[in-house]
Amino acid sequence: MPPETLTPERILEATEEVLRRYGPAKATVVDVARALGVSHGSVYRHFRTKAALREAVTERWLDRTSKELSVIVAAEGPAPERLDRWLTALFEAKRHKAGDDPELFATYMALIGESGGVVDRHITDLEAQLTTIIEAGVSEGEFHTPSPATTARAVFDATGRFHDPCYAPEWSRPEITTDFEAVRDLVLRGLRS
Amino acid sequence: MPPETLTPERILEATEEVLRRYGPAKATVVDVARALGVSHGSVYRHFRTKAALREAVTERWLDRTSKELSVIVAAEGPAPERLDRWLTALFEAKRHKAGDDPELFATYMALIGESGGVVDRHITDLEAQLTTIIEAGVSEGEFHTPSPATTARAVFDATGRFHDPCYAPEWSRPEITTDFEAVRDLVLRGLRS
Repeated sequence: MPPETLTPERILEATEEVLRRYGPAKATVVDVARALGVSHGSVYRHFRTKAALREAVTERWLDRTSKELSVIVAAEGPAPERLDRWLTALFEAKRHKAGDDPELFATYMALIGESGGVVDRHITDLEAQLTTIIEAGVSEGEFHTPSPATTARAVFDATGRFHDPCYAPEWSRPEITTDFEAVRDLVLRGLRS
Repeated sequence: MPPETLTPERILEATEEVLRRYGPAKATVVDVARALGVSHGSVYRHFRTKAALREAVTERWLDRTSKELSVIVAAEGPAPERLDRWLTALFEAKRHKAGDDPELFATYMALIGESGGVVDRHITDLEAQLTTIIEAGVSEGEFHTPSPATTARAVFDATGRFHDPCYAPEWSRPEITTDFEAVRDLVLRGLRS
């Protein structure tokens, strides 16, 4: 009986599970291969190095958030409302990642430390999504800016306390929701003025 | 000849010098006393524990920034202009602390990790200064907010990338000034709308 086809997605799923079980310092490609019941050579055919595999699994983890948010970018409705939903969803997604499975979150923070490029791409993705919403707002006459991309970056930076992992320890504080709403309102007012 | 009077300020100066020389892990109260040519008992008369001394020296370091900024709060001139100067001066002060003497900065970051209370007080100070400027702006009819204190906190949070030490590694990037200006403009527009 032929084994189930070994796809990159199956390897990445197994890698996340292995990372969760052994932690980023101990997890090896051999562990991943063993979890899948294949040789480590089979894994290396899809990911040429251990570093490439770790980068890919980190990217997949970050992309889950980008994909969730892209639904809001593509949705109908006024841009200010979509921007509000987008910022709220970003905060929720990051807060859940940090709070629901703190060990896996710590693991990914360690992986991110190994590879800055993945995070830069993630931020570029998110800022591009914001730019699309802001451009829509400018077309609707709701937002005013000569450079939606610059403004998107400013919005991303201004809301950093609610998505940058360096603030993760604060996301479980009771006042964080009020703090988020105050920044979101200030940013939206700035865009509309 | 009687020795120079041992003031808290002289002890704190010597402590900073000792911390700079030995680092936070190795610096002791005995080192501080030796640098001052006094017994460690004399130091303990002013600071009852090593922790109290370390907290006081950290507070003094943070207060240097608050004092600089308080001059802008007390100055003449329209509130939007003073807010701009205040935010710029805060970023400059933090950037200089991080960039001009990275070892001392790292030392204070370690001390801050020991005592969260000092940082909380510092942030409370800075937010109170911001509140004063925003209240002035509301009186002038330039800013619009039902709660200057809540808005001050939102302004502080929204500009975190330009004063929170977790971003210190980014402050030497060439694009940081443009990023700062974009956030500052967005925030000022939000306040004026």
